[in-house]
Amino acid sequence: MNSDNANPVSIGIVGGTGYTGAELLRLLVAHPGARVVAVTSREQAGTPVAAAYPQLRGHSRLDFVAPSAAALADCELIFCATPHAAAMHLVPQLLDAGQKVIDLSADFRLRDPALWARWYGQAHACPALIAQAVYGLPERHRDAIRGARLIACPGCYPTAVVLGLLPLLEAGVVVPDGIIASAVTGVSGAGRSLKTPFLFGEMSESFKAYAVAGHRHAPEIDQVLTDVAGAPVGFTFVPHLAPMVRGIHASLYGRLASGGHDLQDLFERRYAGEPFVDVMPAGSMPETRSVRGANVCRIAVHRPGDGDTVVVLAVIDNLMKGAAGQAVQCFNLQCGFDETTGLTAPALVP
Amino acid sequence: MNSDNANPVSIGIVGGTGYTGAELLRLLVAHPGARVVAVTSREQAGTPVAAAYPQLRGHSRLDFVAPSAAALADCELIFCATPHAAAMHLVPQLLDAGQKVIDLSADFRLRDPALWARWYGQAHACPALIAQAVYGLPERHRDAIRGARLIACPGCYPTAVVLGLLPLLEAGVVVPDGIIASAVTGVSGAGRSLKTPFLFGEMSESFKAYAVAGHRHAPEIDQVLTDVAGAPVGFTFVPHLAPMVRGIHASLYGRLASGGHDLQDLFERRYAGEPFVDVMPAGSMPETRSVRGANVCRIAVHRPGDGDTVVVLAVIDNLMKGAAGQAVQCFNLQCGFDETTGLTAPALVP
Amino acid sequence: MNSDNANPVSIGIVGGTGYTGAELLRLLVAHPGARVVAVTSREQAGTPVAAAYPQLRGHSRLDFVAPSAAALADCELIFCATPHAAAMHLVPQLLDAGQKVIDLSADFRLRDPALWARWYGQAHACPALIAQAVYGLPERHRDAIRGARLIACPGCYPTAVVLGLLPLLEAGVVVPDGIIASAVTGVSGAGRSLKTPFLFGEMSESFKAYAVAGHRHAPEIDQVLTDVAGAPVGFTFVPHLAPMVRGIHASLYGRLASGGHDLQDLFERRYAGEPFVDVMPAGSMPETRSVRGANVCRIAVHRPGDGDTVVVLAVIDNLMKGAAGQAVQCFNLQCGFDETTGLTAPALVP
Amino acid sequence: MNSDNANPVSIGIVGGTGYTGAELLRLLVAHPGARVVAVTSREQAGTPVAAAYPQLRGHSRLDFVAPSAAALADCELIFCATPHAAAMHLVPQLLDAGQKVIDLSADFRLRDPALWARWYGQAHACPALIAQAVYGLPERHRDAIRGARLIACPGCYPTAVVLGLLPLLEAGVVVPDGIIASAVTGVSGAGRSLKTPFLFGEMSESFKAYAVAGHRHAPEIDQVLTDVAGAPVGFTFVPHLAPMVRGIHASLYGRLASGGHDLQDLFERRYAGEPFVDVMPAGSMPETRSVRGANVCRIAVHRPGDGDTVVVLAVIDNLMKGAAGQAVQCFNLQCGFDETTGLTAPALVP
Repeated sequence: MNSDNANPVSIGIVGGTGYTGAELLRLLVAHPGARVVAVTSREQAGTPVAAAYPQLRGHSRLDFVAPSAAALADCELIFCATPHAAAMHLVPQLLDAGQKVIDLSADFRLRDPALWARWYGQAHACPALIAQAVYGLPERHRDAIRGARLIACPGCYPTAVVLGLLPLLEAGVVVPDGIIASAVTGVSGAGRSLKTPFLFGEMSESFKAYAVAGHRHAPEIDQVLTDVAGAPVGFTFVPHLAPMVRGIHASLYGRLASGGHDLQDLFERRYAGEPFVDVMPAGSMPETRSVRGANVCRIAVHRPGDGDTVVVLAVIDNLMKGAAGQAVQCFNLQCGFDETTGLTAPALVP
Repeated sequence: MNSDNANPVSIGIVGGTGYTGAELLRLLVAHPGARVVAVTSREQAGTPVAAAYPQLRGHSRLDFVAPSAAALADCELIFCATPHAAAMHLVPQLLDAGQKVIDLSADFRLRDPALWARWYGQAHACPALIAQAVYGLPERHRDAIRGARLIACPGCYPTAVVLGLLPLLEAGVVVPDGIIASAVTGVSGAGRSLKTPFLFGEMSESFKAYAVAGHRHAPEIDQVLTDVAGAPVGFTFVPHLAPMVRGIHASLYGRLASGGHDLQDLFERRYAGEPFVDVMPAGSMPETRSVRGANVCRIAVHRPGDGDTVVVLAVIDNLMKGAAGQAVQCFNLQCGFDETTGLTAPALVP
Repeated sequence: MNSDNANPVSIGIVGGTGYTGAELLRLLVAHPGARVVAVTSREQAGTPVAAAYPQLRGHSRLDFVAPSAAALADCELIFCATPHAAAMHLVPQLLDAGQKVIDLSADFRLRDPALWARWYGQAHACPALIAQAVYGLPERHRDAIRGARLIACPGCYPTAVVLGLLPLLEAGVVVPDGIIASAVTGVSGAGRSLKTPFLFGEMSESFKAYAVAGHRHAPEIDQVLTDVAGAPVGFTFVPHLAPMVRGIHASLYGRLASGGHDLQDLFERRYAGEPFVDVMPAGSMPETRSVRGANVCRIAVHRPGDGDTVVVLAVIDNLMKGAAGQAVQCFNLQCGFDETTGLTAPALVP
Repeated sequence: MNSDNANPVSIGIVGGTGYTGAELLRLLVAHPGARVVAVTSREQAGTPVAAAYPQLRGHSRLDFVAPSAAALADCELIFCATPHAAAMHLVPQLLDAGQKVIDLSADFRLRDPALWARWYGQAHACPALIAQAVYGLPERHRDAIRGARLIACPGCYPTAVVLGLLPLLEAGVVVPDGIIASAVTGVSGAGRSLKTPFLFGEMSESFKAYAVAGHRHAPEIDQVLTDVAGAPVGFTFVPHLAPMVRGIHASLYGRLASGGHDLQDLFERRYAGEPFVDVMPAGSMPETRSVRGANVCRIAVHRPGDGDTVVVLAVIDNLMKGAAGQAVQCFNLQCGFDETTGLTAPALVP
C-alpha cells in the first residue's frame, strides 16, 4: 500500500452509528487515501448513512449494512468502533482473510486476558491474538504501528493521562507512587449510550465524579505507566463528567523525586517533532475547546509555588486524539501515508 | 488571478480578534489558494495570533498588526471582519490601491445611504461606493460576484431568511404580505461583544426574544425580499437568542397565494446545482448542529395539515454560511477558484 | 377540607419518577397543607424516594410503592403524573372511592373522545368521565376548579399559548385566522424519556423544530381557543427544542382585526388580580429563566412598527405553570387553601 | 432581637447587582424574620430592583440606592456583597453606628493583614477590625457567630474544601502534607464580572484549569486547615472552570496516616446534627445539581481499592452554602432565629 491517491485504501467501519463511528466517517470522507466502502449497523441496516447523519448529506452515498465478515469482504482495512466484547468475535476472521484491523474498542488493549476478563465480565474470545496487537499510541509505538496487522487504539482517558505523565516517568522525575489523575470528560466519551444519566435533562448544569471505585481505563493506564516507568506505579484515577459533549481534561498530580529539573524543557524535548502533541508555553492552562475536532493533545506543566508537587494539565478531544483521530493517525502510519494526512484541520472554536 | 496553488492570493484580515475574524483564519490557513499575510487588531497588535487563539498553534506564525492601509499594503485582497462603521473608513483607500475587498460588516449592504444612516446612527462615510458593492449571496448574484472589486457579505439572519423564502417569492407562490420570520440565533451572532447579557451566567438555560421593535437586519431582509418579489413585501421579523454558540434557525411562515403547488419540487429545482444549499427530504426538520462549522444552508419546506400556511425551516452556521464561509465562497468566485475550495469539510457533530 | 395546617391533606403521587412527579414532590414537601403519604413507581418500588432524588435527602422518608388503588387508599387526593393513557385506567376507581384527582397527563384534556383516540392511538378507557373533568386553567375556570373532583391540568404549550392569546381573542382584537404559534421548549417538557434525541450529546449546542406536521398539544390548544373565541380559530403551531432543561417561550403572531386598541392596557386589565400572570411593561422581552422554578407566566405584548401584526411573547417554566405548579395551584383552590400557598418562591436566577 | 415575625430585622444589602446580592435578595424576600429596606448599587441607583431582576417582580418594590452609610441608616444589619476591597471602607462606619455586618467578600477572612495585602494588592483599610471578625463557618464557629458583630463569610472554595477535609484533619487520619484539592466551579463563582473568558461563546462546551500558580482562596484554605490540624498543612489547590452557572465540586485527595479507620463513620459522627451538611451513603458520588439553590454541602468519602489514598467528594452551590445561603445561616444564628429559617427549600432539579 502507498499514498497514491488514485488508489485509495478500501475501508470498512464496523459500528457506524456510535459517536466514534460517526467521527471516523467525518474524517475518512475527507481523507485522500481512504475510500469507505462499507459501514455496518445492526439496527439501521438498509438506511442511508446520510439519513442517520444529516451532516454527511452530500458526503456519503452508502447505506448501512448488517455486520459480517462477508459484508466487509471488499475492505483492505477495517476500523472497529464497537462497544467492548464485539470486535474480538469478528477480528479473527478479518485477520485470517488478510485484512488489517484497527480496533477502537477495549478488546485488545490489556495484555493479560485474565485482567481483561475481570474488568469486562467475560472470558476473552481470542486471547491468542492479544499478543499480536500493537498498542496504537504513536508517541510510544510508532515503528510497531507501521508494521502492525492489528492495532488496539488506546482509550481516551489513557491517551490523555499517559501523554501527560510520559516525560516525567520516562525521566524518573516523579515518585512512581501517590500519583493522582483527576480527570474530566464530556459525555461523548460514553458513546451514544441510551442511559438516563446521559440525558440532557440530567446533565445540563451539573458536575459529578463517577466510577471512583474503579474505572475500566484504570488497568489500561496502569499497564502503560508500568511499562513506561519500568516498575509498578501507584496512582489514583478519579473520572468526572462535565456538562459538555467533547473533551477530556486531565489534571495530573505527582511528587518530584528530586529537585533541579527544568520541567518545561523536559516536556518540550520529549515531544519535539511530535505532530500531535503541543507542549504549551510555561504558565498555560489549556482549554478543551482548543482541541475540539482536532487530533491534538495540548499539555502544560506547572510547579505551584516551586514546591515538590508537579501539576500537568493535558487536554484532548476524546473523539479525536482519544479515538477516531488517533485511529486515523495509526492508519496513516500503517498504510504509508504522511502521518498527518486528513488530520490537519484546526479545532473548531468557538 | 487564478487557482495556481503555487501562487496563492495574499490575504489581509481586518478585525482579527472577533469570532468572524477567527473563523476566517480557521478557513484560510487551510485554503490552498490563500496565504494570510496580515491580521489586524488594535488591542492585540504585537501579540502572536496563536497566543490569542491557542487552537491555531501550529497553523499560524503571524503577529497581529495595528490596522492601517500601510499594514495591508502587501495584500491583494482584504477581508473586513470589523464591527459596523469601521470598514467604510478603510475601504476607499484599499480600492484606490487596487486591492479587492470582501466586507463582512454591514457597511455596504443597504443600497440607500439614508436608510443606513437611520439604522446605524451616523452618516455613511463613502456613500458613492455603495453602488459599486455586490451583495455577496452567490445563490442570487454569482456572476456579479465573479467580477466584483467590493463585496458586501449578507448578514447571518438575511442569509437564512432569504434562502428560505427565495423559491416561494420568485415563483409568486406566497402572498407577499403577512410573512413571519421567527428566527433563533446562537450568541456568536453578536460577535465577541463584552456585554452582560452574553455572559454564560446570563444565557445558560434561558431563551428570549430580543429587538422585537426592530433589528438592523430587518431593512436588509426587506431590501432583498423586495428585489426578489419585485414588489414591497410585508413581513415581521422576530429574532431570539438560544443558549448556544453557533447556529441560526429560521422558522418562516407565509400564506399560499394559490393551491396546486408542489413545494418540495419547487425548492429542489430552485437549488439544484447549488453546492451549499441542501433541500432536505419532505418531512425533515433540520438541526443547527448539522451545519456546525460547515458552509451549508439546510432547508425543509412544510405545509401543515395541507392548509394554506407554508412553513419553511432553514438552518445555517452563522459564522460560516452566515459570515466567514460565505465570504470564502465569494472569494473563490472572485479569484477564480472552484467555488467549494476550502469549504468541503463536513459539519462537526456531535 | 380547609387550610388547617394541623390537618393537612393526605396526598398520593402516581408516577413519581418522571420530572413532573419530582417537581410535585419538591413543591409538596414544602407545602403546609399537604402531606405526601404515597409515591408510586413501578420500576423503583421499594427504593427510598431520597435515593432516587438525592436533592430530597432530608425532605422525604417515603419509599416508592407499586401503583394500585390499594396503595393509594389512605390518600384524600391523588396527583397523576403519568404518561398519557395510564391515568384513565386508574381514575375511575379513585373517584369511586371518593378520592379527588388532579391529572397532569393528557387523558382528560380533550372533550371529544374520538379526537383523543385519534391523537393517542387508542380508545379512551372511560369516556364518560371526560365530561366531569374540569380543565385546570385557573385564569379561565377558577370557580369550576374549586368544586371539582377531577381536574385535567393543561399541557405546557397550551398554558403558554392560551394565556398569551386569551386577552386578544376574548376581546375580538385579532383575526381568528392565520394565527402563528412558534414555540420553544426545554427538554424536560418531554419528561425523562429515554430517547436518543434527548441525550446531552445530541442536544447540546443545537436547535431544531419538531412535530411540524402535528403535535398532540395542537388539538388541545384548538379546543381552548375555539371556546375563547366562540368560533373556530385557524392557527399554525410549530414547536421547537432548545438546548435547555426548563422553560417554554411562545412567540405568538396575529393580525389585528381593527386599529385603535391599547394592547398593553388590554392585557393588564385582563390579568389584574391574577397572582400568577405577570404582564410586563411595554417593550419587555421575557426570559425563560425569569420563571425558572416559579409558577408564573410572564407576558409581553408588542406591535412592531405600529403595523397590523401583534406579537405576544409568553414564558413559563413547563414543569411549574406548565405542570406541577399549576397542579398545586388547582389543589389550593380545590382544597380551600390560599391560591398561592406553597407557590410564592421567586425564580432561581442565575 | 428575636424571631418575632411581627418585628423583622431591617436589612441592607450593599452590592445588590452581583449574583451574590441577587441571591441574598431571593432568600431574604421570603425570610419571615427579615425585611430588606435598602439595596445599594452605584450604577443602578434609582432603578427598581424588579427592573434589574425580572424574577423579583412581585417580590420587591425597592429601588436601588447609591451606597453610603446614610443610605443604610435604617438598617439593623447589613450584608456586604461587594467585590473585595470595598467592604473594608464601609464597615468601620457601620459598626460605629451599632449596626451588625455580615461581609460576604474577602475583606475580613484572612487574619494576617500583611497576607491580605499581598494577595489583594493593597493595604487593608482597617486592620484593627480583622481580629473582631468571626469566620462564618457554623460547622466550626457556631457559638462565636451567635454573638458576632462582624462576620466574615467563607469563600466558596474554602467552604467546600474545608467541610470535606475537616473530619479527616481533626481526627488526624490523613497525613497533613501532600493533600490535593482539585476543585471545579461554575462561572457564577466569579460573580457577574464582565470579562471575555466568562462569555457564553467562550465557555460553552469547554473546560479548563485556571489560577494554577495561586488562587486567592488558597491562603484562606491554608489558614483554616492549619487551625484545624493544629499544624501547617501542605496542600495543592487547583481550581477549574466548568461550563455551568452554579456549583462547586471538590475532589480532595489525601494519604491515610494509618489504617483501621471507618471513614464513613468518622464523617457521619462529625456531622451528625448539622442541618446543612449531608454525609451521603458509602459509595455515593454527589452531583452539583443536587444542591442547586439549596444551602447544603453533600459529601461522600471513598477509599479506592482499600488503598492508602482517601478521596473526598464535596459539592455545594457556590451562591448558597458558598455565599448567600451561608450568610443567611449566620444571620439566623446571629439574630436568634432557628438556624434553618428561610433555608429549607429543596434543590431545584432538574
